[in-house]
Amino acid sequence: MTKSIVLVSGGMDSLVTAAIAHSESKSSEHLYFLHMNYGQKTESKELWCFHKIADHYQVLSDHRKIVDISFLKEIGGSSLTDSKMQVSDFKGESTAIPTSYVPFRNTIIISLAVAWAEVVGAVRIYIGAVHEDSSGYPDCRPSYYKAMNKLIHEGTKATSIHVVTPVIHLSKDKIIQQGVDLHAPFEYTWSCYKAEDAACGVCDSCALRLRAFARLGMTDPIKYRS
Amino acid sequence: MTKSIVLVSGGMDSLVTAAIAHSESKSSEHLYFLHMNYGQKTESKELWCFHKIADHYQVLSDHRKIVDISFLKEIGGSSLTDSKMQVSDFKGESTAIPTSYVPFRNTIIISLAVAWAEVVGAVRIYIGAVHEDSSGYPDCRPSYYKAMNKLIHEGTKATSIHVVTPVIHLSKDKIIQQGVDLHAPFEYTWSCYKAEDAACGVCDSCALRLRAFARLGMTDPIKYRS
Repeated sequence: MTKSIVLVSGGMDSLVTAAIAHSESKSSEHLYFLHMNYGQKTESKELWCFHKIADHYQVLSDHRKIVDISFLKEIGGSSLTDSKMQVSDFKGESTAIPTSYVPFRNTIIISLAVAWAEVVGAVRIYIGAVHEDSSGYPDCRPSYYKAMNKLIHEGTKATSIHVVTPVIHLSKDKIIQQGVDLHAPFEYTWSCYKAEDAACGVCDSCALRLRAFARLGMTDPIKYRS
Repeated sequence: MTKSIVLVSGGMDSLVTAAIAHSESKSSEHLYFLHMNYGQKTESKELWCFHKIADHYQVLSDHRKIVDISFLKEIGGSSLTDSKMQVSDFKGESTAIPTSYVPFRNTIIISLAVAWAEVVGAVRIYIGAVHEDSSGYPDCRPSYYKAMNKLIHEGTKATSIHVVTPVIHLSKDKIIQQGVDLHAPFEYTWSCYKAEDAACGVCDSCALRLRAFARLGMTDPIKYRS
């Protein structure tokens, strides 16, 4: 009867992670979904996706939590939250850290999930971090999660809490394939950093998504600007 | 020309930590003070202390940041933020974790400091964590900070950022003595968990503070209920 928290941003990686968490849980009643509003440009679309995904997996309404971390805007330093910085278009694979990086964001998010896990008695925290998607975020590396689990062990009362990263070693196409196998509803995901009505198709995130669907010979079910 | 962030709650440990950071900095211009409002009962008094301490050390106004993390209230699980839980009175030394514990609070706070450090180019993050004060918080142990620094190293672009804990091995009396040596203004500190007009003198935090001043044969400069 292990309770699990799933970090659900509304992107594809989080959807497939939620699908895996659901498949590994005995009941929807053991699932808790956590969503962060950090003042990103496409938040209202992502929140819509969050609730649609939660509905799909029958997550109870009081097991859904949206935390406002929009104070990250005040800290600045990222094109996703700082309106003065421009979101960069996709310019091919790169090992450089993109301007959409929010400093130490995953640590902030996971810390909040750990706090909630202590309160509700959850043991597993699922996050859809991906190492091999060329994004270059330092907090998506397996060594980071190893260090995070060590920190949780040192810093909590309930030392069995740990972060699990079921898609960390998968490519974007493999993630989509796993989602398809689990009948995950991709129509309830959003990846575009720029727009909410129809995805722009040109930002880093759209480019990676479109390429992955193309490689699988599939059509992405969301709407793009024509 | 190393920039430093100091976590200044307004308590004595943070004051003395700020005094040490000031003494280790070449100029007040390299100091950045960060304060968290997490919806605690005595926040307005603590914020007053924060600004008085910052004034004392001539910290520039745009080097002061107050972050509202009152969403921790929603997560609950602590008597400091949950109005339904009662703050416990001091019942002597104990190794049990007190009810004033906010789950994983220090990790949340330090994560935000790391994000700000990346943006302003600070290298050191000073925190007044104390191991030997009988509080029993798991995130005040030296092993926790070792794990935290490992995590920062793994999770940031600027891997020279690290947390320093200059009072972690000191007893409360030694902390006060070091503050006295550095002419730290104890009149601008607050420890009471219960009241803001005059300290209650009976909560865990007041009891530890009063005992330390008594051991040093000193009078605490703040006002207590008679």
